[in-house]
Amino acid sequence: MSKVYKKVALIGLGLIASSMAKAMKRDGLASEIIGFAKSEETRAIALELEFVDRVESSAAEAVRDADLVVLCVPVGAMSAVAKEIGPVLKAGATLTDVGSVKRSIIELVSPHITEDIHFIPGHPLAGTENSGPRSGFADLFKNRWCILTPLANTDAAALDGLKNLWEGMGANVEEMDPDHHDLVLAVTSHAPHLIAYTMVGVADDLSRVTDNEVVNYSAAGFRDFTRIAASDPTMWRDVFLNNKEATLEILGRFTEELFDLQRAIRRGDGQQLFDYFSRTRAIRRGIIEAGQDTDVPNFGRGDGDGA
Amino acid sequence: MSKVYKKVALIGLGLIASSMAKAMKRDGLASEIIGFAKSEETRAIALELEFVDRVESSAAEAVRDADLVVLCVPVGAMSAVAKEIGPVLKAGATLTDVGSVKRSIIELVSPHITEDIHFIPGHPLAGTENSGPRSGFADLFKNRWCILTPLANTDAAALDGLKNLWEGMGANVEEMDPDHHDLVLAVTSHAPHLIAYTMVGVADDLSRVTDNEVVNYSAAGFRDFTRIAASDPTMWRDVFLNNKEATLEILGRFTEELFDLQRAIRRGDGQQLFDYFSRTRAIRRGIIEAGQDTDVPNFGRGDGDGA
Ligand SMILES: NC(=O)c1ccc[n+]([C@@H]2O[C@H](COP(=O)([O-])OP(=O)(O)OC[C@H]3O[C@@H](n4cnc5c(N)ncnc54)[C@H](OP(=O)(O)O)[C@@H]3O)[C@@H](O)[C@H]2O)c1
Ligand SMILES: NC(=O)c1ccc[n+]([C@@H]2O[C@H](COP(=O)([O-])OP(=O)(O)OC[C@H]3O[C@@H](n4cnc5c(N)ncnc54)[C@H](OP(=O)(O)O)[C@@H]3O)[C@@H](O)[C@H]2O)c1
Repeated sequence: MSKVYKKVALIGLGLIASSMAKAMKRDGLASEIIGFAKSEETRAIALELEFVDRVESSAAEAVRDADLVVLCVPVGAMSAVAKEIGPVLKAGATLTDVGSVKRSIIELVSPHITEDIHFIPGHPLAGTENSGPRSGFADLFKNRWCILTPLANTDAAALDGLKNLWEGMGANVEEMDPDHHDLVLAVTSHAPHLIAYTMVGVADDLSRVTDNEVVNYSAAGFRDFTRIAASDPTMWRDVFLNNKEATLEILGRFTEELFDLQRAIRRGDGQQLFDYFSRTRAIRRGIIEAGQDTDVPNFGRGDGDGA
Repeated sequence: MSKVYKKVALIGLGLIASSMAKAMKRDGLASEIIGFAKSEETRAIALELEFVDRVESSAAEAVRDADLVVLCVPVGAMSAVAKEIGPVLKAGATLTDVGSVKRSIIELVSPHITEDIHFIPGHPLAGTENSGPRSGFADLFKNRWCILTPLANTDAAALDGLKNLWEGMGANVEEMDPDHHDLVLAVTSHAPHLIAYTMVGVADDLSRVTDNEVVNYSAAGFRDFTRIAASDPTMWRDVFLNNKEATLEILGRFTEELFDLQRAIRRGDGQQLFDYFSRTRAIRRGIIEAGQDTDVPNFGRGDGDGA
């Protein structure tokens, strides 16, 4: 892959930004990577790990002259950052973000951006339960999807450039309407995360079952939930606050169906349960066939879990 | 490890039985392993894979003269099998099972067993999302827990023998009251499974989000749910029908807390969400420290997911 951008500024230097920087460096996609994060400590780590060429002590300084600016901060911090950098962005620069919601980021960022900036919101569907500047790795985006939600008047050349960057980092790029993005992600990510957090919270609360028991006997299904529920609290708070409507809609559907299955259990309706459980197997097969997960049992942990 | 039993009969030859047989053979824990499963096909596979020494064409034939009989059938089949083998079990033999619920198996099996049989219910907390005679492997129980729920009058020597067998297969053995077992498993396994099945069902049902989208964008949290929801429908139907009370109790708690968090989202109470999400991280750490899961991101899948 050849160079896509000259100067790239990353605002926020956590899991996503450090993974992007490592991928860009490995594949020679940018001439220079400039970084900024809130804390001095994170900026020092970024320099120490050498995934950025230099850091600046403010977001405004970092974006000066950049051809591409990527906002890699929690959703709740997007507006303040946009406000700070808006006035100093170079005319003709591309501005993108990696936030997990899209409609509300468009609303938070757009007011601060002038017409001569190509603002193209984005979201790589790739992450881990870890965060911070030490958690990134160049392969994070490999064979994962990156969804771009370009606005109506988006410049075709700017869009192509950003697509090339993501493809250069190993991702498949898909364009989507921002509201549809938020609905799809409410299903595949936001609702499942809230549910996992809730189930782990319930287990933690039960006085008749000790934490020790929960921990020891977690191999029976629960441990997958605990991994999801170990994700960064700030990031997830912001996701739910900024994708309220779609998340609440999906959770409403979820509780409706859950009540129906609870009733089936109470009534002893084995046929309803069996039919429901049979249907969901097909989706799993689809995911494995699409290369979006491994088919090795237990994700290849090499041990047993379940039941 | 040296021999624990002479003749061992396995009734049911699926994931759990075939894993037990392989572990027993590898570690020389039994002199002879006799198998029976409902279908001719499964019996033939067991012979072909050589994890049993012979198969018989009825459960009654298989258990004749056995020192240990292990019921490895779905919970709903336990009663019929017990009724068939009860009259022919050898006096002094140990009878155990591997069913995922315990109180109701005690109620289903006990009536068919005479006083000269040592009936010791058990449950290895180990499995995968796969099933059938080809899915077993000798390491399934390694470093996993096996819970035994001995009845009041259980013979100490018989209990020791069964413990030795499980420890010989690599498991840690714990004794527990059967009702407490059912509550603990409702938390760590049964409720999480129903929740995962439900969430996958909801995703499958939504007409505004295509199956293709669900599949492609599953890396964001959902794919862990789909793995759980790919588990055997018969087994899980039986689990819910036979652990109604505890499962419904835990699901009741779960929906209560979920409603509370939904309200927090609706009201925009970021502090409540943040606090809740921070609390659940500690449990994850406990599980990793207890050696019950890997701390490699994404279970070591080596790619990205999340958000
Ligand atoms: N993790 C995932 O699974 C995932 C996946 C896809 C998209 N996303 C999205 O990607 C974004 C970043 O997530 P992440 O996982 O990379 O988070 P992270 O590892 O926690 O990193 C966040 C970074 O943002 C910085 N930051 C926070 N507030 C800031 C501010 N006001 N000004 C400047 N920097 C600030 C932090 O600086 P300090 O270190 O100095 O605090 C940190 O470097 C979020 O919007 C998230 O929704 C996450
Ligand atoms: N899978 C797990 O994660 C897990 C974990 C711990 C405990 N358990 C428990 O272990 C037991 C077995 O589960 P598994 O995963 O090994 O199931 P599996 O792979 O589906 O195997 C079940 C076996 O039972 C046989 N069977 C069914 N009905 C029978 C009957 N009436 N008479 C004789 N054999 C019959 C089946 O025979 P055919 O092949 O001929 O149909 C099959 O060989 C269940 O009680 C389950 O609750 C499961």
